[in-house]
Parts: sequence; structure tokens; C-alpha cells
Amino acid sequence: MTKLYHFSLDPMSRRLRLALAEYGLGFELIEQKPWEPDPALYGLNAAGAVPVLVTDAGEPLSGIEAVSEYLEETREDRPSLIPGTPLQRAEIRRLTGWFDTKFYAEVSEPVLTEKAIRRFLPREAGGGSPDMNRVRSGLSRLRAHLQYVEALIDRRRWLAGDELSTADLAAAAHLSCLDYLGDVPWVEFAPVKGWYQRLKSRPSFRPLLADAIRGIPAPASYADLDF
Amino acid sequence: MTKLYHFSLDPMSRRLRLALAEYGLGFELIEQKPWEPDPALYGLNAAGAVPVLVTDAGEPLSGIEAVSEYLEETREDRPSLIPGTPLQRAEIRRLTGWFDTKFYAEVSEPVLTEKAIRRFLPREAGGGSPDMNRVRSGLSRLRAHLQYVEALIDRRRWLAGDELSTADLAAAAHLSCLDYLGDVPWVEFAPVKGWYQRLKSRPSFRPLLADAIRGIPAPASYADLDF
Repeated sequence: MTKLYHFSLDPMSRRLRLALAEYGLGFELIEQKPWEPDPALYGLNAAGAVPVLVTDAGEPLSGIEAVSEYLEETREDRPSLIPGTPLQRAEIRRLTGWFDTKFYAEVSEPVLTEKAIRRFLPREAGGGSPDMNRVRSGLSRLRAHLQYVEALIDRRRWLAGDELSTADLAAAAHLSCLDYLGDVPWVEFAPVKGWYQRLKSRPSFRPLLADAIRGIPAPASYADLDF
Repeated sequence: MTKLYHFSLDPMSRRLRLALAEYGLGFELIEQKPWEPDPALYGLNAAGAVPVLVTDAGEPLSGIEAVSEYLEETREDRPSLIPGTPLQRAEIRRLTGWFDTKFYAEVSEPVLTEKAIRRFLPREAGGGSPDMNRVRSGLSRLRAHLQYVEALIDRRRWLAGDELSTADLAAAAHLSCLDYLGDVPWVEFAPVKGWYQRLKSRPSFRPLLADAIRGIPAPASYADLDF
């Protein structure tokens, strides 16, 4: 069976969980906590990071784009998550990369590191109190990104066009991690909330809503479809 | 004609210049200096960053993976730069992402920002003397990456397998920027030097070797095929 080495609050891991479910593939999840590094992970990915997908045949695949494109290329008769012409696919990949690179660096990484990961790290590995300046800066930039998502969703059914794509999965994966911490100001961005609600209601999303990190309870709204 | 908005010492821009040339596409280069931000760039890419490719039809494409995959999908009868089975393509994309994400964050970004870009930035935008701690840390991590490249090239003709791929272009694009600053310890990594020499000798590489940044002369070895 396909295995996915992941961490619950890692946006790239979440994106692959969503993609695997949308493609209808069964998989086994193996949790890797950033504060308890597993030496075996380096044998699967020289970068030592999640997500790592291990195929049925035992081949370890890493690199978020590499795995995402592999799943698309081997999906057989399942609907594409990078649908359309080369131009439309470029738009999907542009937005997917936007979230996994720019949004991650400006928002997800600082907020998740400071508010969640740092509290579990030993002091010698950088553990301790969160740097609230990094949190504030991340949450302030989150608003600019939500404005951008709102502008996209204002003129399109899904983020990159008429069809659901990896761009929606990437954006929702990042936002769902922040939502676990109660940090998404949905009330100010009603159209974005409507788009997220549609995603949140899909069967592929359900397992993410059941995630629970010991010591960090999610707010009640996190798993509520009518948040 | 296809246009590429680029910056000479931006590794992702260099990767696309190499790819365009390998695919045999003619293109016009439009230089964008990070220290003289061009407001028009935001009209082409909401992230305000290079590289941006503008197609013959005037469509602006951005996001390094988006553009790279677009060129591959529209290459017609030119040789593939992501050749092979889905598994082989996953390995190419894993290594391509390795350089554009991990190598960039750990090596290219700190070294290029501190040694080149910062000297041209106005003081209020972060200009001034380089932070030598960031340079030293970047160059120390460069050695670990060169060891990894050496381990790959020890058992493969090209980085990701038997054929030239975007993984080679990405790696060479990053290394060539550092080489422009004289910062690659080639003498300690003879097999990596041999691989780079093969790339450097390709016609696609020649325009990069003619790059010149005002105020930062490249060492003589930079353009020398027998360095």
C-alpha cells in the first residue's frame, strides 16, 4: 500500500493527503514530528523532510512538486487535478507554487513554527517562547494573501479556473493549518470563506478535520462545516 | 517573440534561459534589477518577481515550475528536459526542486543577496555592508551540497539519470551565479567540475558566460571552459 510520511500541521503533507484522496488512492499515514526527528527519514529523502510518498513498489518519492506531478501522471482514469491547456496548467502551477513558496515563506512557516513547533522543540534546538514579531508579521501578510485569493475567486469558480485543481488543494492546505490555530479572519473575507467551505465539505477534507495535535486543541470552528 | 524578464544573477532566470536555449526557442531578454524595482513587473506577475516569460501571444507566465513545465509541454519536436517514466520524471523534479528550494534558501539567496544585491540597494531598503555571517554560513552549506552532487554524478551520467534534464539546468544555474562571484571550490570536487564543464561547453550556456554586472567583474575563470 502507498505510504505517506507526513506531519499534521505541514501544509505540503496536507496537500498530498488531499490529492491522494481526490485521486481515490488508499494510503497509510506515518506521522513524523518535527521535534522528534526520525533518522530513517533521511534514508527516504536526503533532505530529511516530509512529505515522503512511498509507492506500492517501495519507491520513496519526495519534493512536493515531484510527488504531485507523479500522482497526476499515474492517476489513470481519475479526474485530473492539473486540467486544461498548457496555459491553463501554467496558471494552476503558478498559484500552486505561490502558496508553497511565497505564502509558505511569508505566512505558514513563521506562524506554524512560532505558535506550534517551537513549543515542542528542546531548548538547544531552538525551542522556547514564540517570537511574537514573526507571528504578527505572518498574520499581517496573511491578510494581503486573503485579498489576493478573494480577487481570484471573485472571477473564477475555483482558484485557477473553472475546475478544482492542485492550486485549490495547496491554498486550502496552508489555510487549514492556520485555521487549526484559529488564525484565519474568515469573517472579513466572505467570498474566500465560501470557497473554503466548498473544499471543506469534500470527502477528501474529512480526515484533515479529525487531526489533533497533543497540547494544541483546535478551536470548535476548525472541524465545523458551518463555521 | 517570446520575452523573458530576468536578472543576470537570479538562478531561476538562468535556468529558464538555459531551458529556452536547449528547446531551441529564440527569445528577447529584458533585465530587471532587484535594486531598481519596475512597477510594470507587478502587472506581469502579482508576486513582482523575475523570471516572467511573456509568450508570443503576449501571455505572461510566472512561477519557475509553471514556466518550466509549460515550455516542456509546448516544446513540440524538441528533446524533452523531463524525460523518462513517471518515476524518472519524479527524480528529475525532486532534484530540480532541491536546487530551487533548499539550495536557494541555504546557499544562493544568502550569498547572492549579501555579496551582490545588498551593495546596490538604497540604505532604507536594506542596502549596505554584507552580513558576512550569512555569507560564511551559505558557503559552508555549499560544500555539503557539492558533496551531494558528487555522490549523484558518481553513479549517473547526468544528475537525475542518463539524460540531461531540468535538474542539471537548475543545479548549473545556481552554481553559475556563485561561480560568477568566484565562490565555488571546484578544485575540491573534481567530478562535479567535470559535470559542470560538460554543461558549460553547451551552446545554451554561452550567453550566461557573457553576463556582466556593472561594478562586479567576474573572475577570469568564470567564462573559461578550461577553468
